Amino acid sequence: MMNDVTRQLAHFIVDSRWSALPREVRHEAKRALLNWLGCALGGCNDAAVDTALAALREFAGPPQAAVLGRRERLDILNAALVNAIGSNVLDFDDTHLRTVIHPTVPVAAAITALAEHVPVTGAQFLHAFILGVEAECRIGLAVSPEHYSAGWHITSTCGVFGAAAACGKLLKLDARQMTWALGIAATQAAGLTAVHGSMSKCFNMGHAARNGLTAALLAQKGFTSSEHSIEAPRGFAHVLSSRCDLNVIVDGLGKTWELLENAYKPYPCGIVGHPIIDGCLELRSAHGIAPDAIERIELRVHPLVMQLMGNATPRDGLESKLSVHHCAAAAIIFGAVGVKEFTDACATDPTVVALRARVNPTIDESMAADAADVVIVLKNGSKHHAFVPHALGSLDRPLSDTDLENKFRALAAWGFSTCNAYDVIELLWSFDNINDAASLARTTVPSAATAV
Amino acid sequence: MMNDVTRQLAHFIVDSRWSALPREVRHEAKRALLNWLGCALGGCNDAAVDTALAALREFAGPPQAAVLGRRERLDILNAALVNAIGSNVLDFDDTHLRTVIHPTVPVAAAITALAEHVPVTGAQFLHAFILGVEAECRIGLAVSPEHYSAGWHITSTCGVFGAAAACGKLLKLDARQMTWALGIAATQAAGLTAVHGSMSKCFNMGHAARNGLTAALLAQKGFTSSEHSIEAPRGFAHVLSSRCDLNVIVDGLGKTWELLENAYKPYPCGIVGHPIIDGCLELRSAHGIAPDAIERIELRVHPLVMQLMGNATPRDGLESKLSVHHCAAAAIIFGAVGVKEFTDACATDPTVVALRARVNPTIDESMAADAADVVIVLKNGSKHHAFVPHALGSLDRPLSDTDLENKFRALAAWGFSTCNAYDVIELLWSFDNINDAASLARTTVPSAATAV
Repeated sequence: MMNDVTRQLAHFIVDSRWSALPREVRHEAKRALLNWLGCALGGCNDAAVDTALAALREFAGPPQAAVLGRRERLDILNAALVNAIGSNVLDFDDTHLRTVIHPTVPVAAAITALAEHVPVTGAQFLHAFILGVEAECRIGLAVSPEHYSAGWHITSTCGVFGAAAACGKLLKLDARQMTWALGIAATQAAGLTAVHGSMSKCFNMGHAARNGLTAALLAQKGFTSSEHSIEAPRGFAHVLSSRCDLNVIVDGLGKTWELLENAYKPYPCGIVGHPIIDGCLELRSAHGIAPDAIERIELRVHPLVMQLMGNATPRDGLESKLSVHHCAAAAIIFGAVGVKEFTDACATDPTVVALRARVNPTIDESMAADAADVVIVLKNGSKHHAFVPHALGSLDRPLSDTDLENKFRALAAWGFSTCNAYDVIELLWSFDNINDAASLARTTVPSAATAV
Repeated sequence: MMNDVTRQLAHFIVDSRWSALPREVRHEAKRALLNWLGCALGGCNDAAVDTALAALREFAGPPQAAVLGRRERLDILNAALVNAIGSNVLDFDDTHLRTVIHPTVPVAAAITALAEHVPVTGAQFLHAFILGVEAECRIGLAVSPEHYSAGWHITSTCGVFGAAAACGKLLKLDARQMTWALGIAATQAAGLTAVHGSMSKCFNMGHAARNGLTAALLAQKGFTSSEHSIEAPRGFAHVLSSRCDLNVIVDGLGKTWELLENAYKPYPCGIVGHPIIDGCLELRSAHGIAPDAIERIELRVHPLVMQLMGNATPRDGLESKLSVHHCAAAAIIFGAVGVKEFTDACATDPTVVALRARVNPTIDESMAADAADVVIVLKNGSKHHAFVPHALGSLDRPLSDTDLENKFRALAAWGFSTCNAYDVIELLWSFDNINDAASLARTTVPSAATAV
């Protein structure tokens, strides 16, 4: 069985029927897309998007698909690339907690572009999205945690499979073509966490989305690949991980859904830092602590926090998102941790820099990944203590639909003011009844938009 | 020192001067490009090229660069992609023997396209090419042999650095931009040998070329990346190899040149099979052996032969290139092993299939990689023996300039009849005196070519 995992996964994707999907999975797809589209609008005018467009636009093809929230249109491959960059750049997108994959970006960016080029209904779009997420998360689970720990940016390396699977579903690939699409995805799987803290972090999402779409397009025309790209002795799982469990890719396919394990961030930074922010906000709110009254902030954290967010001296906004020191300081000083608190201005704010230097995280192997312990020691000798068992936004304390709507509105306003957030929200909640999924991209574009 | 390898390499590329390059290195660049351009012309109408064009052309940008040997023009990124596919598909391109990197394809495909978009002289082109090859081969040496043995398609994973370095040189990146370009290359490094035997093998060359060019274009506009992408704890060398020696990336830069370690193939198949072909051709020529007189063919081979070319029952032309059984049988039956002997027709020829089944390779750990021992046992009980200490085309028995010209003519004729091979050859030998390097692509294009 395990020597045929790639084919089994391909068959599952090809054979899957919308009518067989549970209601809660369909609803979770809408929640994920609402969260994602907010991130895309919030990030659409970021320097990373501007720079990618400046570099690549003169080589792009016909104006087939929107750059979300902007007037530019690009060919669907470049649109997938740029929209994945833009929707990840704020680090506000979702997280499949067991793998630390941010599942929506590579899949949604690819199919949103493709849906402007081939006829796709809302239900087909949601269906393809759900399958793409299923593929990438199961492949990620098969190589977790070793793959990520080794330095692979798992959203990128697995996201390319998700994008290929979802695009392949929309392109109505047969099982053999789908197997090739997964193979062409496998041989493009790339992305290093070494580039985190630079624009290249979100570029990893971009190439995953574009390359997955490329894989599906090539396979559709008969471009051949391995039919065992995941499980072959020199295939994805063995080459990119020191250990793998191929069973988890196929066990229970169609019975369990990884999208139900998805979480949405209340704060736009590395997710393992969230319980620390919760704890700091709680203490600030309860005790009205002024930054200059603080002697030091003691944190006890899960080991991953220091691995992923151990940068004590971030130099800019991007780096500050992967600094637990910055997160704690910003929460105490501003009493809110939104996009603004991870700008270059905030990262270099002298008050923040000064308090950051007094944040002392220590690893506690017994701490859960969504928990944290925060002690604030004041200069007058008193101490305030908070223990957060589950971070806001974790599966035990999920954001509600209303929370997600509010997050969407805030992000749309942050990145782009003329999009009608209420229209987008209404469209998404009824997306399974929409005839033309291209409406999703269209609602985000300035009303006077024209092909450029 | 070793914690700054990426920057040191970037500085070397940026600071390198054409006048400092030894004459033999410049000449070897011309030999490599002549060999490469022949491969590109020979493969330009292959199904892999046709299929890639069919899949991607409607998304391509302005007609900025030629598809070599054809009438189509594409944006430079897609041209780099397609030309890398076409120039590798025959498996007739060059080999840096110590890494088994095929160095020219990803670098030359990228800069040939770029040279149609920005002003580049012949000398600048040769210079960038030499530096790109140097970068990819040194990075490959740093992770050899573990990286390739693990299943990485080293030409692809290292070729993306070569393409980025060479394109960055032509774009006149400064040292910081070049460091970023290497970082953007590192985080796209991908390609699995598991897809060998399918069209995806040459697609690995394609994405390396396109992605390296993308890296240089992004870095030029200020798209940031890690400045330690090669040597960082979770950087390329540590993540993609179980062992690395970072010293070899920078030791003797500018003093030794990896291009001088480059070899050109007399036969269009996996290079480790070449001494076996030599031995079979030698025995056929000496003894006039008829296929049906043969009881069996005994081969003693280097371990890599079975790892890379152990397929005893190739189903088509592509697979037959990675079958030492096929190589031996074709050499005996046809007395020549050219492109024709690796077509689908030849791979499924009953005479070939029958003799292939009687080829028995055994691993001999003491055998050099460019050596082979061949024994043909006839049905009448007699035996013929050949030992090949160095394969034709190896560094000890290199192809001459005239050999390369003949190979070019044969390939141009195989793939494409209207290109004037003599013009191309003359252009290349004097390429350091050419004002416009775009002439390289132009000479390969049908005379009535127009932008499509």
